[in-house]
Amino acid sequence: MSEENIVYIGNKPVMNYVLAVVTQMNNGAPEVILKARGRAISRAVDVAEIVRNRFIPDMDIENIDISTEEIAGSDGANTNVSTIEIHLKKDN
Amino acid sequence: MSEENIVYIGNKPVMNYVLAVVTQMNNGAPEVILKARGRAISRAVDVAEIVRNRFIPDMDIENIDISTEEIAGSDGANTNVSTIEIHLKKDN
Repeated sequence: MSEENIVYIGNKPVMNYVLAVVTQMNNGAPEVILKARGRAISRAVDVAEIVRNRFIPDMDIENIDISTEEIAGSDGANTNVSTIEIHLKKDN
Repeated sequence: MSEENIVYIGNKPVMNYVLAVVTQMNNGAPEVILKARGRAISRAVDVAEIVRNRFIPDMDIENIDISTEEIAGSDGANTNVSTIEIHLKKDN
């Protein structure tokens, strides 16, 4: 088992990420962290909710952190983007 | 002061909601709750981050809850939508 089980949420369909989380937990990972930024934040919440409601009922949302990252734009100007980290933990 | 200071995040520009939160806190509300669902979830996170980083540095994100709501569609079918509640608290 790797030390950190992180699933980065991007623009793919929600079920791709749900499957990634379910697979990691079924392979013995006790904790999986979802990371997303900008508009993908809503999708990260969807992933956590779908995993908990439909696939792994004994999983808890242990902690949710939000933060801000500075991203360098192509024109040299920096813009701020919000980020989220959702820590999922399976009761064993 | 009202018992509950809730700001519902919809499709308006982010700064509208930032102003609503800042105004409520400046009027003495120690705690403001942001509520959003679906795609507005990302905007709710933006609002919390902008208030904390630019306007009220002594404000903490006390707690974040996510959940799922069932919404009745116009065709009678129900769809699930993710929701978020961000609890903001001012240190006094």
